[in-house]
Amino acid sequence: MSTELPSIVIDRLVRIALEEDLGGGDVTTEACIDDEARSTAHAVARRAQIACGARVAERVFMLVDAAVEFHPGPNDGVRVDETTTLWSVRGRARSILMAERVALNFVQRMAGVATLTRRYVDAVPAGSKTRITDTRKTTPGLRALERFAVRTGGGKNHRDNLGSAVLIKDNHIAASGGIAEAIARARSRAPHTSKIECEVDTLQGLEVAIGAGADIVMLDNMSNEDISRAVGIAAGRVFLEASGGITLERIPALAQTGVDAISVGALTHSAAAMDIGLDFE
Amino acid sequence: MSTELPSIVIDRLVRIALEEDLGGGDVTTEACIDDEARSTAHAVARRAQIACGARVAERVFMLVDAAVEFHPGPNDGVRVDETTTLWSVRGRARSILMAERVALNFVQRMAGVATLTRRYVDAVPAGSKTRITDTRKTTPGLRALERFAVRTGGGKNHRDNLGSAVLIKDNHIAASGGIAEAIARARSRAPHTSKIECEVDTLQGLEVAIGAGADIVMLDNMSNEDISRAVGIAAGRVFLEASGGITLERIPALAQTGVDAISVGALTHSAAAMDIGLDFE
Amino acid sequence: MSTELPSIVIDRLVRIALEEDLGGGDVTTEACIDDEARSTAHAVARRAQIACGARVAERVFMLVDAAVEFHPGPNDGVRVDETTTLWSVRGRARSILMAERVALNFVQRMAGVATLTRRYVDAVPAGSKTRITDTRKTTPGLRALERFAVRTGGGKNHRDNLGSAVLIKDNHIAASGGIAEAIARARSRAPHTSKIECEVDTLQGLEVAIGAGADIVMLDNMSNEDISRAVGIAAGRVFLEASGGITLERIPALAQTGVDAISVGALTHSAAAMDIGLDFE
Amino acid sequence: MSTELPSIVIDRLVRIALEEDLGGGDVTTEACIDDEARSTAHAVARRAQIACGARVAERVFMLVDAAVEFHPGPNDGVRVDETTTLWSVRGRARSILMAERVALNFVQRMAGVATLTRRYVDAVPAGSKTRITDTRKTTPGLRALERFAVRTGGGKNHRDNLGSAVLIKDNHIAASGGIAEAIARARSRAPHTSKIECEVDTLQGLEVAIGAGADIVMLDNMSNEDISRAVGIAAGRVFLEASGGITLERIPALAQTGVDAISVGALTHSAAAMDIGLDFE
Amino acid sequence: MSTELPSIVIDRLVRIALEEDLGGGDVTTEACIDDEARSTAHAVARRAQIACGARVAERVFMLVDAAVEFHPGPNDGVRVDETTTLWSVRGRARSILMAERVALNFVQRMAGVATLTRRYVDAVPAGSKTRITDTRKTTPGLRALERFAVRTGGGKNHRDNLGSAVLIKDNHIAASGGIAEAIARARSRAPHTSKIECEVDTLQGLEVAIGAGADIVMLDNMSNEDISRAVGIAAGRVFLEASGGITLERIPALAQTGVDAISVGALTHSAAAMDIGLDFE
Amino acid sequence: MSTELPSIVIDRLVRIALEEDLGGGDVTTEACIDDEARSTAHAVARRAQIACGARVAERVFMLVDAAVEFHPGPNDGVRVDETTTLWSVRGRARSILMAERVALNFVQRMAGVATLTRRYVDAVPAGSKTRITDTRKTTPGLRALERFAVRTGGGKNHRDNLGSAVLIKDNHIAASGGIAEAIARARSRAPHTSKIECEVDTLQGLEVAIGAGADIVMLDNMSNEDISRAVGIAAGRVFLEASGGITLERIPALAQTGVDAISVGALTHSAAAMDIGLDFE
Repeated sequence: MSTELPSIVIDRLVRIALEEDLGGGDVTTEACIDDEARSTAHAVARRAQIACGARVAERVFMLVDAAVEFHPGPNDGVRVDETTTLWSVRGRARSILMAERVALNFVQRMAGVATLTRRYVDAVPAGSKTRITDTRKTTPGLRALERFAVRTGGGKNHRDNLGSAVLIKDNHIAASGGIAEAIARARSRAPHTSKIECEVDTLQGLEVAIGAGADIVMLDNMSNEDISRAVGIAAGRVFLEASGGITLERIPALAQTGVDAISVGALTHSAAAMDIGLDFE
Repeated sequence: MSTELPSIVIDRLVRIALEEDLGGGDVTTEACIDDEARSTAHAVARRAQIACGARVAERVFMLVDAAVEFHPGPNDGVRVDETTTLWSVRGRARSILMAERVALNFVQRMAGVATLTRRYVDAVPAGSKTRITDTRKTTPGLRALERFAVRTGGGKNHRDNLGSAVLIKDNHIAASGGIAEAIARARSRAPHTSKIECEVDTLQGLEVAIGAGADIVMLDNMSNEDISRAVGIAAGRVFLEASGGITLERIPALAQTGVDAISVGALTHSAAAMDIGLDFE
Repeated sequence: MSTELPSIVIDRLVRIALEEDLGGGDVTTEACIDDEARSTAHAVARRAQIACGARVAERVFMLVDAAVEFHPGPNDGVRVDETTTLWSVRGRARSILMAERVALNFVQRMAGVATLTRRYVDAVPAGSKTRITDTRKTTPGLRALERFAVRTGGGKNHRDNLGSAVLIKDNHIAASGGIAEAIARARSRAPHTSKIECEVDTLQGLEVAIGAGADIVMLDNMSNEDISRAVGIAAGRVFLEASGGITLERIPALAQTGVDAISVGALTHSAAAMDIGLDFE
Repeated sequence: MSTELPSIVIDRLVRIALEEDLGGGDVTTEACIDDEARSTAHAVARRAQIACGARVAERVFMLVDAAVEFHPGPNDGVRVDETTTLWSVRGRARSILMAERVALNFVQRMAGVATLTRRYVDAVPAGSKTRITDTRKTTPGLRALERFAVRTGGGKNHRDNLGSAVLIKDNHIAASGGIAEAIARARSRAPHTSKIECEVDTLQGLEVAIGAGADIVMLDNMSNEDISRAVGIAAGRVFLEASGGITLERIPALAQTGVDAISVGALTHSAAAMDIGLDFE
Repeated sequence: MSTELPSIVIDRLVRIALEEDLGGGDVTTEACIDDEARSTAHAVARRAQIACGARVAERVFMLVDAAVEFHPGPNDGVRVDETTTLWSVRGRARSILMAERVALNFVQRMAGVATLTRRYVDAVPAGSKTRITDTRKTTPGLRALERFAVRTGGGKNHRDNLGSAVLIKDNHIAASGGIAEAIARARSRAPHTSKIECEVDTLQGLEVAIGAGADIVMLDNMSNEDISRAVGIAAGRVFLEASGGITLERIPALAQTGVDAISVGALTHSAAAMDIGLDFE
Repeated sequence: MSTELPSIVIDRLVRIALEEDLGGGDVTTEACIDDEARSTAHAVARRAQIACGARVAERVFMLVDAAVEFHPGPNDGVRVDETTTLWSVRGRARSILMAERVALNFVQRMAGVATLTRRYVDAVPAGSKTRITDTRKTTPGLRALERFAVRTGGGKNHRDNLGSAVLIKDNHIAASGGIAEAIARARSRAPHTSKIECEVDTLQGLEVAIGAGADIVMLDNMSNEDISRAVGIAAGRVFLEASGGITLERIPALAQTGVDAISVGALTHSAAAMDIGLDFE
């Protein structure tokens, strides 16, 4: 099933980006391009990648000039080769040139996140049920787009923000007087719709958390061996998430421990932009 | 001299990021942390890096709780070792926990850009006057912060946006009927305060651009040898910028050609977040 | 433990409300009140109520005039008699008069929601663990304030928005091909941090939902008898939420069924404003 | 003649409400509903009510997905029975489900205000010229919508905000040195387009206010008897508005005094949401 | 009594103006001014003028740097000679230079409007009760500031916007079927707090409007003679406003007709900026 | 070639202006105009002028009612006689009346700036290459529109904002230790895409600035004779801009000195609105 990105989110971000780049006009295009000139241009992948973000690009062109025609290409999530045309635009040349950089800045970042996510997802051995997830380490202002890109790449999302699920970290534990006390507080005060996740860094902590009724336990910076032991201890009573010190190389072995999820900050905080060009006919 | 980041820019972005993460409250902190609990926490570099963005972190904490005390550490631009305390906060524990992730998301990205920039700058041989610059390939919405981080890292900025300087690319040239015609159009129509830069991909193009009065010529995707020839041809009559296909490894040789500037999209579109933690006392 | 309302949320709403009422100035106050006149005024409960929203009132006065002194009274959540002073302000008379109506509009609504919530909470028999929760039927734009007021009144929140937890309703079930299929889809695609709630209107549906691994089952528009049977069927395997056709009168009997939560749209969509006056000395 | 609600007002509020509910996506719909599924749904009155707000609902659906078809039903202001279809939508199922709650939150509130207003208006005896009006006790951020709903219900609006008309209250009187002085100040300083209303709580005050040239006198918290005397005293020289302590039960007797207007805060601050459901075919 | 300008209005406009000028930083100041340099600067009138807008200037400096000290000078509305210091600032030199132009752009415009208004007001003969008012022909986005400036200059405001008072123009009359019909419609539908003004261009129209109960009649583009006759006809039964074709030269004669108000679009749509410089010590 | 105004800029300003005027509805139009009435209206020049801003007017009507048909007339920049129809609208009468004033306020100001600019441009003798430019003395919030109007009038723009080009003024010189030092600082720190302009008030300053490598020298408040000498000194080595004390009368003589540009603050800070009416059929 396809991923979904509400236009109310897209448009708000596109407006900010366009004001940033185009708020003072485009001195080059106004000088060099005739008002009535028309162009066709194709967004082309310069490297193999996961297609992502065409609808955002479309909105960039639409908000610059509603008369530009936008022709989508491969669906989000499709793996494309270099030289694949991702989408095309046709219309007033000035409009296309004024929107080009902003459109590319969005899709290059989104495709970068989606493609990196797919690499992590593909590193999970076939048959494993371990999911790769993002974190809240997203680019300020772009969380919705980056979470969409993670899903597009085959990953899953972690909680959306501080209000949607409980994640008890060391400071919460210390302030509450222990793991069990923190979980009890959360259970009694948080929405019943919020899962309760608790971070632990020892196997003893895991047992306490399970006993206190955590829904999810985050195994923080543990070795593959300890994570394997944790899976045995949990025995399906709780959802286990490995976090901290994750590298692409560790994914196969980590997944083989049977851990339920591996959360990877790098998906969003360290994805490089994917190379995409806009070629004019 | 220090770099400058107007607070009017910071606050707008910080508000967006806080609404994104904290707009629905923080169910964990409200449940687990007493209203009156107070904490002290220190942002600590987990890797050697260029300090960058403390003022942005400060504004995040201030906008969550104006009573939090913020203690800055090393100035922006200082190279710090891992374990260096970058800045500290003291105040209501709830406020610090609610602001933590957003503050870190900002400074990790800014330090990432500054540190990567410094690597490029340091690759320029001593005595060379070649400058390393960014491009418009910035994260949508964060251009001002990323340009600040580039300067903090010792780089220089390219034009701010489409309205501030002329940059004639292949489509502008084609639409105008040639390099000389495009430059002539720009000269007659653009603000006299806007430099005119023209992209060329051949040495013949360079000569035409110089003859037509370009202020800057961008040498697009040229080999080191051609760039070296371009420097000889220009003979100081025009500012030369190398662009396209730039890697860190090429920088020393590129700088030795005598080219005036090397513009590097990777500074902003591919900088990984720098590892920084917030340690509570 | 006290409830928490991030100032980033408050200020955004207060600005909208002040622009609405004061964006065109205050023709009466400018005409009748001397620039230098000073006043003290007290917000007084005209009926017994649950105190709620003083911090929002404070921000209204601060955003009109940062020099107004604000003196808080009873904490949020405290039951006060009529004639109790809820908070006081002292400062420029013009500022207080210009901010008065907006401040009262906020706290009257917030106290209304908190007080109505408390009535429902108090209707739950002593010793019962049934929680009273809100719904997403909140006033457009005021969700964060109203959820805060519900917590202040002793209620608990339901999910914050469409992105924070899964709630499978009849249309989702129909589109997925059945309860089990819908839950399976959600399980495989939604964040692992999102609880999965499924609405059912029959006891058979309940059994299917439990079998499919729902975390929460919403019993929609069921009689007390059926809810009682549902509690027996669930036997602690799933969290049960009664919803639809809830009245204050039904709460005691409903709670005695042992249902885990009762969600009440009326808490936010039908709370009348609480009478509060601002008395000038 | 029909009431009018500028789209510039609607869209701003709809965007805020959609960001609040849908800014983090819709995890349920994305998981359970196929991208290409289409639906038709009907907004149906669950109780007799005054139709109000279809245009706002339309904008909610349009801003989520411009391809959704919206079919309006009865005009605003029409009294409908329970089971009446108020409006229908047809289009992408995901879009309809994502917009549903926000659309209903708006129209339930608007219909609630309109229907309550109609009850007050209908309580005015036939032939009476007394008008029922709202006050500035509106929901923060929703004033324009609520004032529209009041008009739709057959009521009239009071002043829009602090800048549009003069309303002299006790504090203005005290600060000015008396009723006559306050009115004189307002007359000399306020726009000539602003009516001058003065609040009085005695019949003597009324006489002073008339003598000083008030356009409107607000009779604050007076008994029906005193209001009747006030009507006699005024003898058409001034517009009289009864305010404070108004209940639906008092309306017939109050209207029979001949007072020109009765302003009722409850129309907006205490209207319960009207029950409206969205039924999918 | 002093005029009042709510800070909620000022700050919103100041933020827009600062983002416009300073959103891309200040390349000159960052390059040339030391971070720690401090300055004192004085805003000095270069021509005799009416002081206006110091509080707006103050907010510009505060929003750039809250540590800048702002020292106000003559009150708004005071007539000052050229060379008068209007206000002074002291603080970080970079901050003052970055804020300078925006602050001056605001106060030059505001002083321009105030000073032009005073010229019109001063042209009204001593003893005349005729007021000079503005219109809705204000600069988009700056209405509140310009209305404030008009009051500061001794003028009075017309209606704030389309929602605050009724102004029936020729198209409304034509659509309603005549002056009397249009006034009747407005009387029955508009808020009772809204005065009803009707534009007429003949003396017959005036009589109809008075008969129909208009509160204000706008005499559109009439000669002084006709206006004089209108004053005789009205005989105090209605407020008369002359409008259209107003020049400064006509004011004395117009005022001598006894007309109640003269509305002058030029106050806001054609006021030249007043010359004010910022002199650094 | 035609001037260009990105819609992203237009729409943001139009929304602000419409909220300002129409946020509270239009009490007159709602009362007097039937919902279904339709009108055609023509914007007519009341004085000879330079057409400017039709696209902004179009957006005003579209944002009030997307169904209004807008028929453009003469292109921006065309000189029109009084009585020329500038553009026409056809559609719902209520919509046209609600949008009328805001649309006119925009185009009257834009045409005012364009027409004043044309007068300055026409004062430059035939054959002269001197350009007339604006400054940063624009109306807060309207810079993009006013710069567009200047170009429409035949003028050229100066730098867009503080971030786009270097302009060294007396305070920068003083803080840097002299003209040469300030230019050297700017050369080493500012973007290579930013021209460096330096203000001087003596011919000696000019020689220093040229020697230090300024791109542009602003001759501040110099006599025609000194400017003529400056042209001789510069001998084409630097772009010369005359500024300060510019009047329309001085333009011919100033241009004859051969100065490259004359920057005129009055184009934007003192242009009177151009008279344009909206005539209904």
